[in-house]
Amino acid sequence: MPHHHLPPVVVQTGLDQAWRDAEEADSHDPLAPRRDRFALADGLVYLDGNSLGALQPSVATRIQQLVTDEWGAGLIRSWNDAGWVDLPGRVARQIAPLIGAEAQEVAVTDSTSTNLFKAIGAAWMLQRDHLGGGERRVLLTDDANFPTDVYVARSLAALVGGLEVRVVPPDELMAALDTDVAVVAVTEIDFRTGRRHDAPALTAAAHAAGALMVWDLAHSAGVLDVDLHAWDADLAVGCSYKYLSGGPGAPAFLYAAARWHRQLANPVAGWFGHAAPFAFDLAYTPADDAARFTNGTPPVLSMAALETAMDAFAGLEAAQLQDKATDLTSRFIALVDAAGTELEVVTPRDPARRGAQVSLRHQDAYALTQALIDRSVIGDHRPPDLVRLGFAPLYVRHVDVVHAVAHLVSLLRSGDWDQPRFHARQTVT
Amino acid sequence: MPHHHLPPVVVQTGLDQAWRDAEEADSHDPLAPRRDRFALADGLVYLDGNSLGALQPSVATRIQQLVTDEWGAGLIRSWNDAGWVDLPGRVARQIAPLIGAEAQEVAVTDSTSTNLFKAIGAAWMLQRDHLGGGERRVLLTDDANFPTDVYVARSLAALVGGLEVRVVPPDELMAALDTDVAVVAVTEIDFRTGRRHDAPALTAAAHAAGALMVWDLAHSAGVLDVDLHAWDADLAVGCSYKYLSGGPGAPAFLYAAARWHRQLANPVAGWFGHAAPFAFDLAYTPADDAARFTNGTPPVLSMAALETAMDAFAGLEAAQLQDKATDLTSRFIALVDAAGTELEVVTPRDPARRGAQVSLRHQDAYALTQALIDRSVIGDHRPPDLVRLGFAPLYVRHVDVVHAVAHLVSLLRSGDWDQPRFHARQTVT
Repeated sequence: MPHHHLPPVVVQTGLDQAWRDAEEADSHDPLAPRRDRFALADGLVYLDGNSLGALQPSVATRIQQLVTDEWGAGLIRSWNDAGWVDLPGRVARQIAPLIGAEAQEVAVTDSTSTNLFKAIGAAWMLQRDHLGGGERRVLLTDDANFPTDVYVARSLAALVGGLEVRVVPPDELMAALDTDVAVVAVTEIDFRTGRRHDAPALTAAAHAAGALMVWDLAHSAGVLDVDLHAWDADLAVGCSYKYLSGGPGAPAFLYAAARWHRQLANPVAGWFGHAAPFAFDLAYTPADDAARFTNGTPPVLSMAALETAMDAFAGLEAAQLQDKATDLTSRFIALVDAAGTELEVVTPRDPARRGAQVSLRHQDAYALTQALIDRSVIGDHRPPDLVRLGFAPLYVRHVDVVHAVAHLVSLLRSGDWDQPRFHARQTVT
Repeated sequence: MPHHHLPPVVVQTGLDQAWRDAEEADSHDPLAPRRDRFALADGLVYLDGNSLGALQPSVATRIQQLVTDEWGAGLIRSWNDAGWVDLPGRVARQIAPLIGAEAQEVAVTDSTSTNLFKAIGAAWMLQRDHLGGGERRVLLTDDANFPTDVYVARSLAALVGGLEVRVVPPDELMAALDTDVAVVAVTEIDFRTGRRHDAPALTAAAHAAGALMVWDLAHSAGVLDVDLHAWDADLAVGCSYKYLSGGPGAPAFLYAAARWHRQLANPVAGWFGHAAPFAFDLAYTPADDAARFTNGTPPVLSMAALETAMDAFAGLEAAQLQDKATDLTSRFIALVDAAGTELEVVTPRDPARRGAQVSLRHQDAYALTQALIDRSVIGDHRPPDLVRLGFAPLYVRHVDVVHAVAHLVSLLRSGDWDQPRFHARQTVT
């Protein structure tokens, strides 16, 4: 984007030096060429990759071929001939290195919610049936967790009966660890504020208390230096339609540490998790690795889109992604601070304690978000009062950060965000 | 297909009159125009719509538009602007009339396996928490059920603890109904033989014994005159990638009778089943109808393919589909009988007792199936000794039935099926 495309506001707010610095940073960014894989309109600043990752045209091409040639012409034969049957395993091999896992520890299947049910349920059964933890009746989580994670834990508890879901503030998790706790299940990144848990420390504390640790990596995978082996995590789940750019509602993943494979049972067992699905045996013999956590027939269209999308990560290490994300969020926070607006940065300023997002508090955050979108700076709103912006390292540039701040400042100074049309509510906000 | 395209074998085996009869039947078939919606190659006889329904080119067009315009350009805005958020509800309205349900009794979500877990789990909780059936500890099913259904019941029982999965032959289900049975869960159509349960009678017997009834409609929906209201079913699940032609791994559905909505809990609750998902409330308030059985973010690509595919059923009644399926299977059985081969028809000869498939027993059924596929007559093999052929009423013609029999007879008389290449095993058979 050449300099003369800069909106006037940049100069007005003294961001011209910031622009030159950002251009310089982009010119040295080793990830910059990856942006060319994505289809992003000129002038669009997309800061919602934490809700829905951007499209790569290669994915559109692949899906068209799959639908027309493989489904349309190949029909049932494509399960073998086009390798559909191996799709979940292939995608597991793509995701594993981004989360510090071996491929056989990853299953790509279902939604994050369903996988979380399986992960927490499997952890609880492991406690009860193999670790002598049947007297432990508490599932521990925090009150900043994504709501679905709490719903899953409570519905699991209601089904099993006699389990308690203990919900405490994030900074009281350690203190809440007692001998009643069977499983700790939390999300690494707070979806509202971007606050990052100290995953190695919390995992160690859970283990010290005799509990098993389940991580939700919804806002972590593909953008942070996740290392489940180093953390010593027991199970984990994650989302592929956010930073992995797999497409709307793309299949989620589940991690199960190899050390537990022999003893872990899938509480929602199904035929695709059988060691030999097409033997149609009434006796269930689970696959000998994390593939036992698959169950029904995979959604091939959505799974194939994810497979092609994952090509964008080929050859990258998670640390590179985190480094760029940190640069982008640090630049954004510094510019917001320098602009001196009424916005409050609620995301931790310590890069080690945040994800790839920055959330800003404003009393009319909803309307401000809509006004930003109207100016082609796309973020989202999280009630009651947050503008949430995500910085996907594969396609967000340093100059995009400057643009976003320039528009924010311009909107606030002009009051242009306070129009009735920006207050009109939509279903998904 | 003009008469002169008939393979020589037709005349050799005396099927010429059969061909003329079939042409006559096709000319009067009210469903015949629907075949034009589908992309089936000339000369292909596709009798595997019970494994993977055929593609409609309109689906390919829709998916390309969705990927490129809605995901690529619209990005996160498409959840509102392109109506993604209403997709599951729209598809529920399409499926409901085919199964004798109201739209608010249907959720389109997850895989059949996962939905079955939710349905059986919800039925059991209903017994325990609302119907005074907590002492009933048996989940009853039959040993001809699809294996995943048995795996699901057993894994649910293992998770809950203290539940027993009782597996009996299909014709002993009634006798196995005692006061210990909490839930009966069976598949209407035997995936191997095509045998059809007497659904109204079994449902009534289950209710008379104080049990709840869960039906798996995997091989029923879109092809048989399913009437869940008339059967008085409590819950049901079904598959959309078979006769509904939704595409490989398309989302499944779950039916919950309206009379239970107030008391039925989803044991795998998630945010999309919340009455107001985007309020992000830690307290779970379920949607007031079957939508509470959705949980995670829906797979939009696969769901949109299903929505467009369902246009093929617009304006049709389930009875019309069943009538044509009966005609096709009756014609097929009569022609096989007349040909006098070593094949054994294992599917019930009473049309009221079978689904839209015919299964043939042969000691080398695998190789025979492969040889048929090689001749562009596509069915599938079910171990150990069945050739399984499905007759989807929207795109299988009466002349296709004659072609299939002609090729079968030709293969058997010539011995051409007994070649090494037809015995080579593939992953999915």
